[in-house]
Amino acid sequence: MAKEKVSGKKYVYKFGGTKADGKAEMKNLLGGKGANLAEMSNIGIPVPAGFTITTEMCAVYYKMNRKYPIELTAQIKAGIAHIEKVMGAKFGDENNPLLVSVRSGARISMPGMMDTVLNLGLNDKTVLGLAVQSGNERFAWDAYRRFVQMYGDVVLDLKPKTKTDIDPFEEIMDEVKEEAKVKLDVDLGVNELKELVKRFKAAIKERKGVEFPEDPWKQLWGAIEAVFGSWNGDRAIKYRNINKIPHDWGTAVNIQSMVYGNMGDDSGTGVAFTRNPATGERKFYGEYLINAQGEDVVAGTRTPQPINASTKSSKDQETLEEVMPKPYKTLVAIYQKLEKHYRDMQDIEFTIQKGKLWMLQTRTGKRTAAAALKIACDMVKEKLIDEKTAILRLGPDQLDQLLHPMFDPKAEKEVIAKGLPASPGAAAGQAVFHADEAEAWAADGKKVILVRIETSPEDIGGMNAAQGILTARGGMTSHAAVVARGMGKCCVAGCGAININYKEKKFEVNGKVIKEGDWISLDGSSGQVMNGLVATIKPVLSGNFGTVMKWADKYRTLGVRTNADTPKDSQVARDFGAEGIGLCRTEHMFFEGDRIKAVREMILAEHIEGRIKALAKLLPMQKSDFLGIFKAMKGLPVTIRLLDPPLHEFVPHEEAQQQEMANEMGVSLEKIKQKIASLHEFNPMLGHRGCRLGIIYPEITEMQVRAIMEAACELKKKGINVKPEIMVPLISDANELKNQADIIRRVAEETIKKTKTKVNYLVGTMIEIPRAALTADKVAEVADFFSFGTNDLTQMTMGLSRDDAGKFLPSYVELGIYKADPFQILDQTGVGQLVEMAVKKGRSTKKNLKCGICGEHGGEPSSVEFCHKVGLNYVSCSPYRVPIARLAAAQAVLKQKG
Amino acid sequence: MAKEKVSGKKYVYKFGGTKADGKAEMKNLLGGKGANLAEMSNIGIPVPAGFTITTEMCAVYYKMNRKYPIELTAQIKAGIAHIEKVMGAKFGDENNPLLVSVRSGARISMPGMMDTVLNLGLNDKTVLGLAVQSGNERFAWDAYRRFVQMYGDVVLDLKPKTKTDIDPFEEIMDEVKEEAKVKLDVDLGVNELKELVKRFKAAIKERKGVEFPEDPWKQLWGAIEAVFGSWNGDRAIKYRNINKIPHDWGTAVNIQSMVYGNMGDDSGTGVAFTRNPATGERKFYGEYLINAQGEDVVAGTRTPQPINASTKSSKDQETLEEVMPKPYKTLVAIYQKLEKHYRDMQDIEFTIQKGKLWMLQTRTGKRTAAAALKIACDMVKEKLIDEKTAILRLGPDQLDQLLHPMFDPKAEKEVIAKGLPASPGAAAGQAVFHADEAEAWAADGKKVILVRIETSPEDIGGMNAAQGILTARGGMTSHAAVVARGMGKCCVAGCGAININYKEKKFEVNGKVIKEGDWISLDGSSGQVMNGLVATIKPVLSGNFGTVMKWADKYRTLGVRTNADTPKDSQVARDFGAEGIGLCRTEHMFFEGDRIKAVREMILAEHIEGRIKALAKLLPMQKSDFLGIFKAMKGLPVTIRLLDPPLHEFVPHEEAQQQEMANEMGVSLEKIKQKIASLHEFNPMLGHRGCRLGIIYPEITEMQVRAIMEAACELKKKGINVKPEIMVPLISDANELKNQADIIRRVAEETIKKTKTKVNYLVGTMIEIPRAALTADKVAEVADFFSFGTNDLTQMTMGLSRDDAGKFLPSYVELGIYKADPFQILDQTGVGQLVEMAVKKGRSTKKNLKCGICGEHGGEPSSVEFCHKVGLNYVSCSPYRVPIARLAAAQAVLKQKG
Repeated sequence: MAKEKVSGKKYVYKFGGTKADGKAEMKNLLGGKGANLAEMSNIGIPVPAGFTITTEMCAVYYKMNRKYPIELTAQIKAGIAHIEKVMGAKFGDENNPLLVSVRSGARISMPGMMDTVLNLGLNDKTVLGLAVQSGNERFAWDAYRRFVQMYGDVVLDLKPKTKTDIDPFEEIMDEVKEEAKVKLDVDLGVNELKELVKRFKAAIKERKGVEFPEDPWKQLWGAIEAVFGSWNGDRAIKYRNINKIPHDWGTAVNIQSMVYGNMGDDSGTGVAFTRNPATGERKFYGEYLINAQGEDVVAGTRTPQPINASTKSSKDQETLEEVMPKPYKTLVAIYQKLEKHYRDMQDIEFTIQKGKLWMLQTRTGKRTAAAALKIACDMVKEKLIDEKTAILRLGPDQLDQLLHPMFDPKAEKEVIAKGLPASPGAAAGQAVFHADEAEAWAADGKKVILVRIETSPEDIGGMNAAQGILTARGGMTSHAAVVARGMGKCCVAGCGAININYKEKKFEVNGKVIKEGDWISLDGSSGQVMNGLVATIKPVLSGNFGTVMKWADKYRTLGVRTNADTPKDSQVARDFGAEGIGLCRTEHMFFEGDRIKAVREMILAEHIEGRIKALAKLLPMQKSDFLGIFKAMKGLPVTIRLLDPPLHEFVPHEEAQQQEMANEMGVSLEKIKQKIASLHEFNPMLGHRGCRLGIIYPEITEMQVRAIMEAACELKKKGINVKPEIMVPLISDANELKNQADIIRRVAEETIKKTKTKVNYLVGTMIEIPRAALTADKVAEVADFFSFGTNDLTQMTMGLSRDDAGKFLPSYVELGIYKADPFQILDQTGVGQLVEMAVKKGRSTKKNLKCGICGEHGGEPSSVEFCHKVGLNYVSCSPYRVPIARLAAAQAVLKQKG
Repeated sequence: MAKEKVSGKKYVYKFGGTKADGKAEMKNLLGGKGANLAEMSNIGIPVPAGFTITTEMCAVYYKMNRKYPIELTAQIKAGIAHIEKVMGAKFGDENNPLLVSVRSGARISMPGMMDTVLNLGLNDKTVLGLAVQSGNERFAWDAYRRFVQMYGDVVLDLKPKTKTDIDPFEEIMDEVKEEAKVKLDVDLGVNELKELVKRFKAAIKERKGVEFPEDPWKQLWGAIEAVFGSWNGDRAIKYRNINKIPHDWGTAVNIQSMVYGNMGDDSGTGVAFTRNPATGERKFYGEYLINAQGEDVVAGTRTPQPINASTKSSKDQETLEEVMPKPYKTLVAIYQKLEKHYRDMQDIEFTIQKGKLWMLQTRTGKRTAAAALKIACDMVKEKLIDEKTAILRLGPDQLDQLLHPMFDPKAEKEVIAKGLPASPGAAAGQAVFHADEAEAWAADGKKVILVRIETSPEDIGGMNAAQGILTARGGMTSHAAVVARGMGKCCVAGCGAININYKEKKFEVNGKVIKEGDWISLDGSSGQVMNGLVATIKPVLSGNFGTVMKWADKYRTLGVRTNADTPKDSQVARDFGAEGIGLCRTEHMFFEGDRIKAVREMILAEHIEGRIKALAKLLPMQKSDFLGIFKAMKGLPVTIRLLDPPLHEFVPHEEAQQQEMANEMGVSLEKIKQKIASLHEFNPMLGHRGCRLGIIYPEITEMQVRAIMEAACELKKKGINVKPEIMVPLISDANELKNQADIIRRVAEETIKKTKTKVNYLVGTMIEIPRAALTADKVAEVADFFSFGTNDLTQMTMGLSRDDAGKFLPSYVELGIYKADPFQILDQTGVGQLVEMAVKKGRSTKKNLKCGICGEHGGEPSSVEFCHKVGLNYVSCSPYRVPIARLAAAQAVLKQKG
């Protein structure tokens, strides 16, 4: 404890009795716990008196190099005096001692991550007073030995650092139990507890060279310092990194009078939710333990009992309602008051000390997605909140849970590895290592997971047959990931920890071997790979989902489209409320069935004549794709991107297939191999792809546009409305777009003229190369619309290959160099700056330029909010993320207004 | 000929007589030739009267889809009337016919790339008048048959398209010569010439289905259309692409009265330079042919003679001065007047018709780099120009010629022939005999010498691809000579001793045979042709070079540093005036000798301990490198970039070497292979490299900084001044730089403390990822300096892999999508926008932030000018480009003021 200069600032906020210095709105300053304790005091709910040292103090403490400003001492003294007055006890008094708890309390709950000290104020003298006051000597000495142990662990740093370290206190406990020949802690008598206190103190002296402090004030300062110190403990830092909580927020410290639920059978402690957090049902729901401290409920060492009949599962269980009807009645009145006051489902903690009910905590209760929807809808019906509040209260990301199969939360899981969450959902199946085997096993009615180092177009059949896909290499945009997302299939990609041995059909991970036929399970939303078959459950969408989506559509101004390449996906997305297709990738169609042969023939042709011949074979196939998609999206706009990937992605890599191509085309295998070798690229991301293909091989663009426009005209003739938007990928300069737009418009007009129909079409471009954004004013001269391809734009703006970043990106996030993975959450500072610039520049040339986004970010809530802010017209995302985007778009409007 | 709407615009500018409508400054409108003809008229120099149709008309012509505005007809009529009046002859008159030439004339000379028609106005009637007027019937009919042939070739498109096509006129010529039993054209009599005219016309009728137009006006419009049309001929487009001339400039058309140098022995024609274009010597220098047309000099079909003693090489040669002393005296007076008027060395064309001297052209003469330097220095001494003009007149790129190797005078040479020293420099390569073969061989990475009897515009591509050019015919002003000098390429012309056999692909000289693929060497400064590959040495720079560099340093404000990784390169660069090292790449040192083993050990190590052990081996090696470089740059700043490339660039790819590493490290080959496989990246450009290495493996950064600072401190102790600037590569966020800067500063301070010396060092960063530029204000908080890595910045900003762009980038430039290869010339619009933004943002945080550039662009003149404009402190380039950068930097200042 060290002090310095005086500032006159208020660092201590009192609560308890009839009023408080703080209130609920002061969470940033007082932390969640402190603010709510103050609020409860203000509305007349009984809380043990106490005070909160502000989060500001935490920052000051670190700024002053772990020292305190001098005025803190007096404020803390006043705080203790306040507790003494309200609780009618005295800190350090030998007869009627005041005991306090010292707990952390950050703005956002970080459960179990920081330190707590209970029963503070006990020493060799006050323990005697407590014994008298409580009329229970054993209780007093048990509290004392717990305090010494906790103080030793937390403040004096005796807690074991690793699992193999021995806890000195546990060691002593075992010794004493053995000497007393008892098995359980509760069987220890007063004398053994006294012996424990003695030996604990001796252990502290021996290991740390300091005496256990008998002075309660010294104890108090030590505990405060420990709580502030635990803010920067390893666990806390890691937790904040994972949960993206800023490191400079700091924690508050709550010092509060102890109350005891373990003073006998007229005492108890419990936790409760004002509604069911799993289903949202409007029923008071909770658990309690008789004659116990709060820690006992949380620790799970004794199994708690239901507070009322709502969750009672057997007749043997006694409810709080039955056992202590009076305090229960008070508790019901309080929970109703709290829910009404906070207008949200509350998670509360209480203690009953000798028949008197004390509230220890209230906070907004965590809930499942289904419960969140139900509670929001119910509360609107109950007129507790309005629609806007209901919308703002839902976590868009949580909706994901509702839309995909999930693992049964009750199922046991043995997680053996973790990869990238490449395509969401849950899948379980038998491991197979080759695509054709996946197909064969599936044909036999087996469920399989296809495990590959990486996938290639040859594996499409096997991927389709499998329940899920696991790859050792490749990122979120690898072949496996993209194809799986398109299929709505669960995929874990880039799981570097697994060593695949194709020859022996097995993989090894951390010493564990999974052979062909062994069951594994994948969680595509978390990236977890699990051993064995983990049970899954299918989601059922409630009417509440529809209600919330209707509200969202009412408030949002941002359009929501989908990324879909097949009529099936298009239909799924429409059902989820997509208002068009924002990205239809034509190359995915190239892989289907026999088409790949024609594609390869086109690529491997020596001259334009050969290419044109092969393209002629592809034309009717592409046309039929577009017919299907246009039909599914009847009347809604469909943005079709022309061929994008480098051609080498389509060529065969196995010699057998190369020979097949050679036979088919009547050239030598050597020739085919040469051509394939000539297609090799060092950095394919920045290579011969996108519009660069259409510029060098205009015949490809012509074929694709002809297929699009013939399909559109054919449907139009049948009276089906069609809105094709043809999109040129990867431009870096307006001239590239002009080159392609000239071809597109020429071929489109030819087709329109030939078919004698009128189809309105747009010609636009992806903005995915930084230079395109930098020169957007020029590009807009030639474009009807922009669509931001934020996947590639992120890669180029940040110089970051998504497929290769696995080696350092996780460390970057852990070290706090990047706030988040920029491929999951749009980097607003850098990439977003280019997006905003391009929108402004583009609209400076063409006022009403339509702007959208079709990168993965289009379905990520904070990125959707950004898109709304910079004035995009729509976001486009994978079908299953459409509802998330709709909700996020509505929230963006409401946040901006709020 | 088609006409439309009237605009009242002036499209025709007259010249000749005593005054002209135009002047020298109107080159953009009148083309170089037209503007100078006007200027000569204005200053009283005799030019045959004529008029110029503006370049603007060319643009209008193409805009109107190859039609003319209606008012052009009247203006051309007025133009012809003007010529008639001045020259005293009448267009189409049977007795006293006016004959004209119709020539192209672009802003910048494009020699031989566009069409010309001579003797226009001749027909079956006017030819008789010309016979009478000239008193020479044979001359008249020879002119007529030439005109029909030329008109057929150029206007009626009968010129053979490929080398194997037969020229119908040549065929007829051969027939008639055979019938007349003569060998040479000049031996044909009047009757045979009449027969030629008849048969030429019949061939036109037969092949083209049109009559040769007898109407001079029809002839005139046809010729004008042909000249405008030739602006977009294949040759012209190719030439403009190579020389980066915008395609929208257009050509003017000059219509001018014919004068004849082939009217007898009192007539002649010639070309001259007012100073020696190869050496710059202040001597009037030129060639002429008696009784010949200008085309004969340029085509190289007759070898011309010197105009005066200055270049006379044998007693057999008769000079113009001797043969026609009076016109020569006039010519001398005119050239002096012209040089004084234009204040620059002039390239002039003249014709003497029956003793009267006519000037046909004057323009700024092309010259070698050495000549340019000498002329500039001389003219400053002569007070013709000032220093600033001298600086602005030099082509920085041309300096390259002076800085490149020459033949070692001590090397053994087997001189097999001697030709004219047409373009200086030294070149060695394998002999090839066709332009397309030169291109093909060069594409295969071979060095070739293109050997031709004479070159023609079709050979441009091959000349560009070759190391040097050797011709058997043609003088110093032949096509080969002029084009080679423009390209800065070594050329020996008119080497009559060699007998070229195209069919057998060989030449024979004095009994020696050189076949395709044999090595020969050319000395373009002496005209020597040598057998085999002759060794080259470093050039010795003249005093003029030093003078000009001194002037440049006086005016420039931009610093010039060098990119150097070795003490030797550092020394070369210092000698060329480098003011420090702007980029010292440490990884190049990693490859030297045995070091690569330690590097590989570091990379292949499983744990940090292994890496640290290997790094300890590298430390003394890196330190010794830095000692050498610091010594060489004594007192000048040295910017050292920390390890940049991805680690897989260093690992062994051959199994033998992998086994060696396995043995060395005591692990299995399999393990090594696995590790190498795990380093594979899909897009290494955007992968685990740059600062990402130092962040994941901080021990690498520590070792490098320790090596740098230990070297610096050691020298400082010895009294040698050292200014290390430590540079972190590839940052995308200020946090990355902060992470590395913390390590750098810690290790640097440790070293300084340990060695008890004071070394000032800077810590800065490359700006080479777009996001670094976009967030430069934040980055500048942590950086002492920025260095723009425009190579990578170009790759990422444009989404363009330099290693893979070969498949489409040349087409992009050819199609005009990109103005130039952005890796050669900085893309100011896109990449430059980021550079400018980063400088501004960076200095908004740190006012005096030092900014430089270290990409290849740092030695490219237009990019250097850009760097000056956006306020960089220095450019850094390869040692040999340092003088170019110094000159370009001075020009940037003078251009900005001007």
